[in-house]
Amino acid sequence: MSIVVTDPPRTETALTDALADLGVATVHEAQGRTGLLDPALRPIYRGARVAGNAVTVSMAPADNWMLHVAVEQCRPGDFVVAAPTSPSSAGYFGELLATAFAARGVRGLVIDAGCRDVAALTEMGFPVWSRHVSAFGTVKETLGDVNVGIVCAGQRIDPGDVLVADDDGIVVVPRLRAPAVLEAARAREAKEAVARERYAGGELSLDLSSMRERLAAKGLRYVSRAAQGDEA
Amino acid sequence: MSIVVTDPPRTETALTDALADLGVATVHEAQGRTGLLDPALRPIYRGARVAGNAVTVSMAPADNWMLHVAVEQCRPGDFVVAAPTSPSSAGYFGELLATAFAARGVRGLVIDAGCRDVAALTEMGFPVWSRHVSAFGTVKETLGDVNVGIVCAGQRIDPGDVLVADDDGIVVVPRLRAPAVLEAARAREAKEAVARERYAGGELSLDLSSMRERLAAKGLRYVSRAAQGDEA
Amino acid sequence: MSIVVTDPPRTETALTDALADLGVATVHEAQGRTGLLDPALRPIYRGARVAGNAVTVSMAPADNWMLHVAVEQCRPGDFVVAAPTSPSSAGYFGELLATAFAARGVRGLVIDAGCRDVAALTEMGFPVWSRHVSAFGTVKETLGDVNVGIVCAGQRIDPGDVLVADDDGIVVVPRLRAPAVLEAARAREAKEAVARERYAGGELSLDLSSMRERLAAKGLRYVSRAAQGDEA
Amino acid sequence: MSIVVTDPPRTETALTDALADLGVATVHEAQGRTGLLDPALRPIYRGARVAGNAVTVSMAPADNWMLHVAVEQCRPGDFVVAAPTSPSSAGYFGELLATAFAARGVRGLVIDAGCRDVAALTEMGFPVWSRHVSAFGTVKETLGDVNVGIVCAGQRIDPGDVLVADDDGIVVVPRLRAPAVLEAARAREAKEAVARERYAGGELSLDLSSMRERLAAKGLRYVSRAAQGDEA
Amino acid sequence: MSIVVTDPPRTETALTDALADLGVATVHEAQGRTGLLDPALRPIYRGARVAGNAVTVSMAPADNWMLHVAVEQCRPGDFVVAAPTSPSSAGYFGELLATAFAARGVRGLVIDAGCRDVAALTEMGFPVWSRHVSAFGTVKETLGDVNVGIVCAGQRIDPGDVLVADDDGIVVVPRLRAPAVLEAARAREAKEAVARERYAGGELSLDLSSMRERLAAKGLRYVSRAAQGDEA
Amino acid sequence: MSIVVTDPPRTETALTDALADLGVATVHEAQGRTGLLDPALRPIYRGARVAGNAVTVSMAPADNWMLHVAVEQCRPGDFVVAAPTSPSSAGYFGELLATAFAARGVRGLVIDAGCRDVAALTEMGFPVWSRHVSAFGTVKETLGDVNVGIVCAGQRIDPGDVLVADDDGIVVVPRLRAPAVLEAARAREAKEAVARERYAGGELSLDLSSMRERLAAKGLRYVSRAAQGDEA
Repeated sequence: MSIVVTDPPRTETALTDALADLGVATVHEAQGRTGLLDPALRPIYRGARVAGNAVTVSMAPADNWMLHVAVEQCRPGDFVVAAPTSPSSAGYFGELLATAFAARGVRGLVIDAGCRDVAALTEMGFPVWSRHVSAFGTVKETLGDVNVGIVCAGQRIDPGDVLVADDDGIVVVPRLRAPAVLEAARAREAKEAVARERYAGGELSLDLSSMRERLAAKGLRYVSRAAQGDEA
Repeated sequence: MSIVVTDPPRTETALTDALADLGVATVHEAQGRTGLLDPALRPIYRGARVAGNAVTVSMAPADNWMLHVAVEQCRPGDFVVAAPTSPSSAGYFGELLATAFAARGVRGLVIDAGCRDVAALTEMGFPVWSRHVSAFGTVKETLGDVNVGIVCAGQRIDPGDVLVADDDGIVVVPRLRAPAVLEAARAREAKEAVARERYAGGELSLDLSSMRERLAAKGLRYVSRAAQGDEA
Repeated sequence: MSIVVTDPPRTETALTDALADLGVATVHEAQGRTGLLDPALRPIYRGARVAGNAVTVSMAPADNWMLHVAVEQCRPGDFVVAAPTSPSSAGYFGELLATAFAARGVRGLVIDAGCRDVAALTEMGFPVWSRHVSAFGTVKETLGDVNVGIVCAGQRIDPGDVLVADDDGIVVVPRLRAPAVLEAARAREAKEAVARERYAGGELSLDLSSMRERLAAKGLRYVSRAAQGDEA
Repeated sequence: MSIVVTDPPRTETALTDALADLGVATVHEAQGRTGLLDPALRPIYRGARVAGNAVTVSMAPADNWMLHVAVEQCRPGDFVVAAPTSPSSAGYFGELLATAFAARGVRGLVIDAGCRDVAALTEMGFPVWSRHVSAFGTVKETLGDVNVGIVCAGQRIDPGDVLVADDDGIVVVPRLRAPAVLEAARAREAKEAVARERYAGGELSLDLSSMRERLAAKGLRYVSRAAQGDEA
Repeated sequence: MSIVVTDPPRTETALTDALADLGVATVHEAQGRTGLLDPALRPIYRGARVAGNAVTVSMAPADNWMLHVAVEQCRPGDFVVAAPTSPSSAGYFGELLATAFAARGVRGLVIDAGCRDVAALTEMGFPVWSRHVSAFGTVKETLGDVNVGIVCAGQRIDPGDVLVADDDGIVVVPRLRAPAVLEAARAREAKEAVARERYAGGELSLDLSSMRERLAAKGLRYVSRAAQGDEA
Repeated sequence: MSIVVTDPPRTETALTDALADLGVATVHEAQGRTGLLDPALRPIYRGARVAGNAVTVSMAPADNWMLHVAVEQCRPGDFVVAAPTSPSSAGYFGELLATAFAARGVRGLVIDAGCRDVAALTEMGFPVWSRHVSAFGTVKETLGDVNVGIVCAGQRIDPGDVLVADDDGIVVVPRLRAPAVLEAARAREAKEAVARERYAGGELSLDLSSMRERLAAKGLRYVSRAAQGDEA
């Protein structure tokens, strides 16, 4: 039985935008190092940093029909995430579907399969994170689901979760945790800004983070070759 | 027995140029989803779109001697395609050979092995699609063949076939099929241009391609959480 | 027992700079096709060409503590090379550590593991060659070593060795061999400059390198389809 | 926050045993080609066919502490399934833990990481399906969870689900669907037994499954070389 | 256009049997180190050594319909070789099809995709060489070809060619070359039998194959640590 | 310059035999989780457990000449370890070389490349751990080294080191550390024997290793669904 849920929960755009500003690495740390999708999914071009509300798509191998179905369910601020039910390297997504998604305000696509027309997608500025780049086409024969919970690249994603993606990869934030994760990520970012400035001035994390004692306690020793007569 | 065929069949440049304009994804679809080389072969830089007449090279593992032999057989409009007889990640091809090929009007190289000097090749604008980037050098000890049929990245390629390559990958079009494939690709491109414009205007493929009835017939159901009292 | 060697041998900057000018492929050939690190390590952005004195770091899996320890040991002209004791795809290195290293004049990082914050690293121009790009964070729990001999990406590297890295990959030159390798690389470069110019003018390596006799002796035959009546 | 759920739902042994008899391929087909774990997980020895009630374990990379915690939660008929929060090839599981699990009646382990002591495990007949075989040891530093929903090898698994594993791989059956899947699998098995016997007698699926008309309708043609004068 | 060639050329069983006796490694060497299929294809069980006349099958991704069509075309002594038109890890082949093929005297299957029911296939002694083991099922929707030339695992295979397969892998021998390859393989085998006996008696290939002079001429030096005072 | 060291240091057989008894996992733990070779190297058959004195071989890609040279340098109790200077999947080693090595009392081979004749090697009981199984042959053209330090599968190995290999993989023990590692491994084995017996009797590592307090201190909580009214 294949279904399309027409009124999934959604996370508001203000929240997803705020998470986008912080980036994948910071958000991932802020929620306790969870939610990172398999790093084998890579952006088709560099420089995009996007967050949005997850619209989920479950598809058959080498069949992109449900992406066409998904277009109608999308609103501005959505971020489509799609996974095949078994591994497929086919090129499910290209310029035509990107045009349709962009017309509805979709911000990007995460797909655990292949993408094609990457030159055109780069030119139009529609960001995609995919496992493969491949021109191999797909069929439209088998149903799947839209806006039901899926597993994509090793993570559970429910409709309405937040996806954050940039050059480092993709992280999913569960919808109900998103406000708390945002707060934690901002705190982390503020702390890192201070550290960055002090490191740039030549200070050491050994001192700023008081690591020296703990290193010594664990047994780290500093040794000199010269003192040992080894000067080869 | 190693041979060099000095007068292989060739496809004229007007035909290969027309196929280049259409791109790999469209050509691949137009010939019935056949002829795509293994997508693991990637361009060493983005943005090239090239087609040409295939000059084929079969080489020993970690031995690039036959590429030197192949230079003399090339003419303007040719596209060299090379495969080792067993898998090799060595860097068979670099700036020197590219200079030699460019001097004879060769448009690019597809190689199921490694390439090096990628910065210099990018600067001189000589496009290469390869499985690996590697500085590991090769020897010149063992013979191979030029302009005999080969298997490269999973596809049979005969001298005179057409290679089309861009950021999506590489597709081979058999020489005698090239005119028909060009016609089919142009028809497809024209049809897609219409769809692209209508999608950009907000129309749905569900309607334009009359998918709704077939989806319903296969059993797709649209459901509402609200109607089911599920509003978590 | 974990140690930090505080006065490792070093190779002077004039020597490493001269090797950088020649590039990885030429240096690798010049030292007899040895010392190339696994080509699976790739630059996080294109266009950097760097050489420097190796500061070595051995780390626990998914633990970047020793990179923090290493900062203090670095001087201008150093090139940090780090490897985990068992395979790890975690993101050991990002913007904060890069800021710290850059403040001490470090030229880059080679790491047989993951890197993150690649957009920020690209913007600040701190080059990294890594096996993975991943936002997955690391801990600071387990000791390792700084400036002891390590194996990184299949090559032995001792502190004070020279690392040369560019878009083609990374090669290590043992410290004591560096002057001789520089000389050999310069000789090779000079020879290649001549060949490049002559190839650009249309001359063939078959003639310039006198390959024709050796090819014939090995049995290469030139055949004509026309002469054989095969004109399909 | 790390938790151990002490009274998870469970599927009764009679049901899991009945599914074991049918095997992974049949069960997978019977539930609509869903639930198959990544085939990269392989049995450490051939010939085991096991089903059981899933006890789930989420672990830190290279840290097997939660497997020790899980032992206490196990009962006869359970099947432990464990996944690290980020990819790890370390050897989390060996003879000692197997002894502890076997003493509590556990039937086997599915782990999306490494296993060691495979000779001893084979001798004692404790079946494991793992992604890696590796002697690399783990630490006991970081908490995880027992009996909460996890993603393992691409599939969602909840405590109380049924795992079926044999030489073909592993399939998960959601707890509440298990009775219906069993019924469907038995029906499939009965139908296949008939087909097997008739195939063994020389009958063709082309006839038994009435494929010929559909093949012809799709355009399949039977051609003779002899009739075309091609007898090379 | 999909076709089934009903009267392909065949190689007689006496010839394929003689090649089977010699094994893959010897046959591969005897035909000049050509024809070896990608070693990633492995036998599903150890100990089979089989040769036969190739019946070729080209299939759509995740679709095993053409294997059903192929059964009817098989005769005793045939060896079926099948490849999908794009990469697929699905389990195309299992016990039912094996029963049908065995009933017609087929000796085995080489498939550049997945296989399932490996326990049953092992028990019935039907050998398969495959890239994957996977329970993931296939559909019967798309046509392909039987007994036309294909590329499988990197090698061109035409109907009527000889396939030889054992624990080392698979090699294809072109039909018209088979008698000459058999002769060369027998000569090689005889020579190796002599070498094996002399090696077993303690003689060295350095002497039997007169390698010492050539090694010295290339510059090999034998050195003694003791003579150099190095006795660490 | 290629050399053969004729009088390398050696570790006595009594010591290597004692380490073999303890197995790879125990020895690896006993020397502080160091020295494990890349687990991608696997035994060609199951059930062998071997240790021996390392005779090291460095070879050119796809060239097995130096294995022939190495035979003469071997004595009873040696264990040959070989690595190519760049990655190669070719089949360097088969029945003939195994016969020669066995005649000199060599106990096995570790090779970071391919092996062939695996059926014959299994029958004669000559164990090999290799990265690949492949029938692809090699040449005898390029020199290498015997009994100099090499990197094999990510570990430095010097002649005279101890190699221990079994179904779990391979570990190298530096020659001078071998006596201390043996002692530590025996202590570990004794401790594990006690634990094994107590686990078999139903005791828990949570109690035997006093883990409960540390788990609680880190924050592990035990929760009951029933107590929370969750009984779905």
